[in-house]
Amino acid sequence: MATIQVIPLGGVGEIGKNCTAVRQGDDIVVVDCGLSFPSEEMPGVDIVIPDFTYLIENRDKVRGIFITHAHEDHVGALPYLLPKLSVPVFASKLALALIRPKLEEKIGLKGLDLREFSPGDELPAGAMTVEPVRVTHSIPETCCMAVKTEQGIVLFTADFKLDFTPVDGKLTNIQRLGELGREGVLALLSDCTNAEEPGWSPSEATVKEGLRRAFAAAPGRVLLTTFASNIHRMQQTIDVAHEMGRKMAVAGRRMEQTLETCSKLGYVRIPSGLMIQLRDSTQYPPNKLAILTTGTQGEPLSALVQMSKGEYSRLKIIPGDTVLYSARPIPGNEASIWRTVNRLFRAGANVVYQAPMPIHVSGHAHIEELKMMINLTRPYYVAPVHGEPRHQHRYLQMARQMGYPEHRAFLLTDGVPLAMDETKAWLDEPVPYGRVLVDNSGEPGLTDDVLRDRNNLANDGFVVVTVVVDADTGEVVGPAIVQHRGVHGDSSTMDKLPDAVADALNVFAPDDIRDVDSVRREVADSARRFLHKRMGVRPVVIPIVVEV
Amino acid sequence: MATIQVIPLGGVGEIGKNCTAVRQGDDIVVVDCGLSFPSEEMPGVDIVIPDFTYLIENRDKVRGIFITHAHEDHVGALPYLLPKLSVPVFASKLALALIRPKLEEKIGLKGLDLREFSPGDELPAGAMTVEPVRVTHSIPETCCMAVKTEQGIVLFTADFKLDFTPVDGKLTNIQRLGELGREGVLALLSDCTNAEEPGWSPSEATVKEGLRRAFAAAPGRVLLTTFASNIHRMQQTIDVAHEMGRKMAVAGRRMEQTLETCSKLGYVRIPSGLMIQLRDSTQYPPNKLAILTTGTQGEPLSALVQMSKGEYSRLKIIPGDTVLYSARPIPGNEASIWRTVNRLFRAGANVVYQAPMPIHVSGHAHIEELKMMINLTRPYYVAPVHGEPRHQHRYLQMARQMGYPEHRAFLLTDGVPLAMDETKAWLDEPVPYGRVLVDNSGEPGLTDDVLRDRNNLANDGFVVVTVVVDADTGEVVGPAIVQHRGVHGDSSTMDKLPDAVADALNVFAPDDIRDVDSVRREVADSARRFLHKRMGVRPVVIPIVVEV
Repeated sequence: MATIQVIPLGGVGEIGKNCTAVRQGDDIVVVDCGLSFPSEEMPGVDIVIPDFTYLIENRDKVRGIFITHAHEDHVGALPYLLPKLSVPVFASKLALALIRPKLEEKIGLKGLDLREFSPGDELPAGAMTVEPVRVTHSIPETCCMAVKTEQGIVLFTADFKLDFTPVDGKLTNIQRLGELGREGVLALLSDCTNAEEPGWSPSEATVKEGLRRAFAAAPGRVLLTTFASNIHRMQQTIDVAHEMGRKMAVAGRRMEQTLETCSKLGYVRIPSGLMIQLRDSTQYPPNKLAILTTGTQGEPLSALVQMSKGEYSRLKIIPGDTVLYSARPIPGNEASIWRTVNRLFRAGANVVYQAPMPIHVSGHAHIEELKMMINLTRPYYVAPVHGEPRHQHRYLQMARQMGYPEHRAFLLTDGVPLAMDETKAWLDEPVPYGRVLVDNSGEPGLTDDVLRDRNNLANDGFVVVTVVVDADTGEVVGPAIVQHRGVHGDSSTMDKLPDAVADALNVFAPDDIRDVDSVRREVADSARRFLHKRMGVRPVVIPIVVEV
Repeated sequence: MATIQVIPLGGVGEIGKNCTAVRQGDDIVVVDCGLSFPSEEMPGVDIVIPDFTYLIENRDKVRGIFITHAHEDHVGALPYLLPKLSVPVFASKLALALIRPKLEEKIGLKGLDLREFSPGDELPAGAMTVEPVRVTHSIPETCCMAVKTEQGIVLFTADFKLDFTPVDGKLTNIQRLGELGREGVLALLSDCTNAEEPGWSPSEATVKEGLRRAFAAAPGRVLLTTFASNIHRMQQTIDVAHEMGRKMAVAGRRMEQTLETCSKLGYVRIPSGLMIQLRDSTQYPPNKLAILTTGTQGEPLSALVQMSKGEYSRLKIIPGDTVLYSARPIPGNEASIWRTVNRLFRAGANVVYQAPMPIHVSGHAHIEELKMMINLTRPYYVAPVHGEPRHQHRYLQMARQMGYPEHRAFLLTDGVPLAMDETKAWLDEPVPYGRVLVDNSGEPGLTDDVLRDRNNLANDGFVVVTVVVDADTGEVVGPAIVQHRGVHGDSSTMDKLPDAVADALNVFAPDDIRDVDSVRREVADSARRFLHKRMGVRPVVIPIVVEV
């Protein structure tokens, strides 16, 4: 029988850009194709996607991309992979409805092979098959993926929690997971994002009571911010607004689009007469209004952040407004979130982010649910994914407590295949992998060199020193021209830089001046010395030597 | 009687750079002179200090600077103010011991008038006097400042908590605070950092049991990271290491210096034989070792961060190490802290930051302690300081619940004086105020323009286009020279930029070419158009026109 390889291309030892391949002989199955967001160390970068080299090099073997759910960290890189890989994409009805317009906008739908599945389908993938199994998460129609190989089932949990009172009434198919366990799960690739959280995650339904109380306590308008993809949360907000006799408007393009798509397909139920246009909101008394809005992460262009700055033309914050923060900060965004919150307070709003009853719960399993998943599926091997090393570490600690010896519990990293044959599992030779940066040019592949330059420019600015030399006479013509940006210091000192450069070049003989490279070097060196010694700064120095 | 003004120059509506003036007629008292740390929106900035214009303009009226405690956010800007203001600085023995070396390093001690006080002293300040009153906080000898004016006492709580079992045994002088309340507190300027936290803050002493358990559970070395200024925490770590029979070494220059100063003056008690040099640590078995280290905020140059990267030559992380994170993340630092934690896990350490018993407690009063302070001192006016708007808002909500009407509870902002006479209080005309940025040049005053340039350069890089024109003939000489940094895009497209610029200049008549300004404009415009249209990028474009 063939060796089975599980090859993480992203999303292992990190949160975001989830993409994993399963290979059996000449067949490759890809589970998810997500993006992640840049850290503050990546200025000008819009999104980060996996390095797809391995898939592209093996494009004739890839049988399909199987989408667990429609969150960006699981689907957002499709527009970058599909132009290079002509394979079917399998996804649920809702996921397809959310993915399709984004693909259309970025790469057009022509030539794409998008296929809808239902949980329980047996999807073809060369000599393997893939069965999606329903689980609960913060977006409907999330599915585990059971990849059926010669050696047994490789089971991806996807992002999940075990919610016994889900908002849409659609329970995790625990029975089917149990059956798969009996059939033989070779390896469980488990969500571990919340492995540090004790006990069981509270049901999404518990948020409803928190929202009711927060709405009831609000003297004026309620503005609720949540992730535009958290469809259950939006449903509950809609329900509570309706109960409380408030009209509802939406601020934020993505949220409007998602709500429209979901309501059209029946994933969100909107009572008739509830929704109003944002521009009509002034016609209602404040305590009869609720507004759903984007901006949970302090994104500069989001509706909430613009409102907090008084720059959102369609809505102004007024004293008496209550802003409900129904989300969690993604690590790294805290500073901009708090800036937004503080601005909202200054504008006269009351911002609620801690409440006696929760107004947010996580969509990811806590530690006891992770144990339950192992108990149900009885995998031979376990490997935590969708988490940082600290989460993986905690998951593996738990697995040891559940009796998994070291050779059956793996700390995976991106790019390193987990190989399994009849008798053992091991970490195989790495495949090409890494982060690929996409900036506003839209062209992936911003290099580390460019990033380093950007960080240097941000910290110290730059100085351009242009010197004109006469190639015939070997003389410097006129004073050096100095241009600079982002450099802090006394401008009268900067004005003396041309003299310093001229002094340095004075010692050059006419023959030396004709050696443009060495002139360029001396211009740069003398400018750097001057700037550091006289102004205490170390900007990027660009010497330009013009020969005439 | 004179109107009393309380003039916040920093530290109100923000955390950090605490500095407030109290003015009565021609006398000004300054309480604290702190710095804050830059946000991620201030690349290349090292520290942020208050704008001292008001104090400098009134330098003949300033009677002294009164230091509540030696944390950087209360003393770190002294080296920038003292050269411009020749006034006495009053501080406790410990605070002076910690401030003096920093002043010596930066500006020298010559001409400085540093005066030691003890709690209870009546310090002269023109027609006012100032009495320091002991409170508990995370550094010894923290004092409230009671500024005694004609209208009554203006009481600054400083950073405080009410710890009934302080590590050094020195209790808050609650009785004296009560007496001051009876004498008549006109206004209470209260810490509000933890106004969102319910109940009472746990005593620093509770951390000891948490540390004991964490030490006992560690199979190998213990590395504990805390703030280098948290002297009580260092004392407790020393005590627990000693109890557990471990030797202790210190990694981090600032921590070593602080420990040395404090131990010399008796503020830290180190059992003899406990301390070893870091370089000797390899001579002891791992489970007989504890290491105190800096780096709680993921600072790139700190010992812990360098260890996590394997770049700290004096100590390598080894499997079996336990790292105790005995601190809290300052908002904005989360991303770099988690990166450090994840690297430590990858290096084989176990990192403990959540524990059943706390290994960190805050040094700031929770909401019930803030109420207690009001109850003790019975101020006529209250105003929360040392907090962001969200904390001030919560404090004022609490004050309303305690019966303070709106005209006796003030939301202050930096630069706006709170004025009080016999009958009322009001917000007065603003004085000059603001943030002053200090970068590695050491010269304060980096401008918003420079900051904007830096952010633009970070996001998009820059392109310099140099064109040579012959002033006699009105012709462009040779192709444009293009230099760029931080720009992402196809280099073969960039190679076509000189042609695009040449095409744009082709339409210029010889007379137009002699108009250097318009040539410069056209070079910039044509380059920008080309870069945006052909490469999708919008870098900073610098046109240079050389006339020969």
